[in-house]
Amino acid sequence: MQPPVHAFGQVFVRLQPHLASLDIFLRDQVARFEPEIRSMADYCIDTSGKRIRPALVFLSGWRGDEAPSPDLVKAAAVVELVHLATLVHDDIMDEAELRRKRRTAAREFGATAAVLLGDALFSHALHLAAQFPTTEVCLHVAESTRRVCAGEIVQTLRRGSTDISREDYWRIIDLKTAELFRVSCFLGSRLAGSPAAYVEAVTSFGRHLGIAYQVYDDLADFFGDEQRIGKTLGTDLSSGKITLPLQILLDRLPPAERAGLNEEIAGRRSPQMLLRFSQMKELGVFPSVADAINAEIATATEALSAWPTEGPTPLLLELGSILREQVAALNPEPPKPAQAG
Amino acid sequence: MQPPVHAFGQVFVRLQPHLASLDIFLRDQVARFEPEIRSMADYCIDTSGKRIRPALVFLSGWRGDEAPSPDLVKAAAVVELVHLATLVHDDIMDEAELRRKRRTAAREFGATAAVLLGDALFSHALHLAAQFPTTEVCLHVAESTRRVCAGEIVQTLRRGSTDISREDYWRIIDLKTAELFRVSCFLGSRLAGSPAAYVEAVTSFGRHLGIAYQVYDDLADFFGDEQRIGKTLGTDLSSGKITLPLQILLDRLPPAERAGLNEEIAGRRSPQMLLRFSQMKELGVFPSVADAINAEIATATEALSAWPTEGPTPLLLELGSILREQVAALNPEPPKPAQAG
Repeated sequence: MQPPVHAFGQVFVRLQPHLASLDIFLRDQVARFEPEIRSMADYCIDTSGKRIRPALVFLSGWRGDEAPSPDLVKAAAVVELVHLATLVHDDIMDEAELRRKRRTAAREFGATAAVLLGDALFSHALHLAAQFPTTEVCLHVAESTRRVCAGEIVQTLRRGSTDISREDYWRIIDLKTAELFRVSCFLGSRLAGSPAAYVEAVTSFGRHLGIAYQVYDDLADFFGDEQRIGKTLGTDLSSGKITLPLQILLDRLPPAERAGLNEEIAGRRSPQMLLRFSQMKELGVFPSVADAINAEIATATEALSAWPTEGPTPLLLELGSILREQVAALNPEPPKPAQAG
Repeated sequence: MQPPVHAFGQVFVRLQPHLASLDIFLRDQVARFEPEIRSMADYCIDTSGKRIRPALVFLSGWRGDEAPSPDLVKAAAVVELVHLATLVHDDIMDEAELRRKRRTAAREFGATAAVLLGDALFSHALHLAAQFPTTEVCLHVAESTRRVCAGEIVQTLRRGSTDISREDYWRIIDLKTAELFRVSCFLGSRLAGSPAAYVEAVTSFGRHLGIAYQVYDDLADFFGDEQRIGKTLGTDLSSGKITLPLQILLDRLPPAERAGLNEEIAGRRSPQMLLRFSQMKELGVFPSVADAINAEIATATEALSAWPTEGPTPLLLELGSILREQVAALNPEPPKPAQAG
């Protein structure tokens, strides 16, 4: 098996044994599915995913390099299964062809089976969540799942609409992405028995990192490298989804040009990707979005400032630094290196 | 609001206050959804449904005519929400236009929003399930949900296939329908604090009643009254779904005729509904299917035979009797009344 390519890089090296335990656990869970579903579920739980949410569980509950506790592995499986279920359902709606260079479940098995496969993954996640001694894990996971779905619904209902405020955008990504990052951090920290105030700090870190990560993802949809990311760029514009880079571009375009872009977002005219991309460069969209991401990472970092010596703190902060580097690496006009001398 | 039309008739009259409490509870839950989802969820939680699964919760936990305990109402809401979520997703896949004479959620809001709405209903159900003091409810509901999805997946994968044994059919309906009937009875009985052996008996009753109910539903797809049921007949044949009436017809047709019907099931020829219906009458399909349903009701009844004096027993048995009557009412050639004198 190929080692997964991680947006979050080096910190994942230390996590390899944890992620390997997760993989064994997930395979074993799939073996308990009805025979007809096993191969479909296996197809989804493939190792090429980034496993960011499980990593957040493991890092938030970090107690050194030894093997993770069975509880952490189970919690990591829960958040990953919820995430996989949302991906399976998202790909149906986006009519996406490929995900990580493979055919999506919807293309491979048909939309009908994909709806049900997503449901089966969801319910298996909740079944695992219910295996903890108290209802706490189940309660949080179910609530988060509902909020993730709510975020996706709001985003779906707004497709093609150009009347989306910054607040709307922030609320959507808080629900659809930050929520699962948040609950991953909460579960890891809580299950490791951290003091309540630290659990709260780590949870807040997770939420803000999740927001930052989603804005980064939306930035990469315009400024990424198709080869490296393994998906088509510009899909947000072509599917009428307004993200921060587009919002900023709309704000800065002269009114006549803005009307044209609005037509593209509404799907009444085909998107002029190259023009929009060059306008984004010209009007300084990249640095503004990067600033927003870095501000969010700073908020995440700040949440941990009172806890510098807790085990998970430096590892979580490293995630923030890596994300900052990933953002910088997308810069189409990287800052010139300082003159020597 | 119109009182709901119940396949299960009179016993539901005593349940009216319970079902009214459920309705108030469900409306209150919907009010907690994000604003964008509220009206969609409200549309689904409409009062025209039969509420059979909540009724099973209430009857299995019956302690007299007084107001139901908050726990029973919550459990009833859980099973109904799971059921509604599966309906929302089923209607996407069936490309159904109408359900109970109203446009399906998929038609009303689009398939994309319907996938997510179903997810939100699922996760809200699990969130409610996690609000009980122990993980037991959540554990059972999540496992049942997974099995319901598994049943739907197996059925979907087999569409258009003529190679489906009686065992396959029985397994599919056990998963997709009987499972939720079973868990509804389990929850009602368990939450009412019944002795373990009685809980087991009631749970077994629920499972067999669920199987009987699904076979009845499949029979009604051929022998029902469109006006009364409020949906198009013959949809199982036209969607390539092999049910017991079709299996029996296939068995009894001469080989040449059987090949033609197989072509219709496989979707390679348009279904000849009138011909198939008259063949079913001619070859005695109705009484054979009715016998199978009644045998299943007898098994359900037998499960309660050691508990004649427990409060829920007579009410549950009444459900069996009512279903038997419903089956008889479908009979295209009702037995002649006995001669007087």
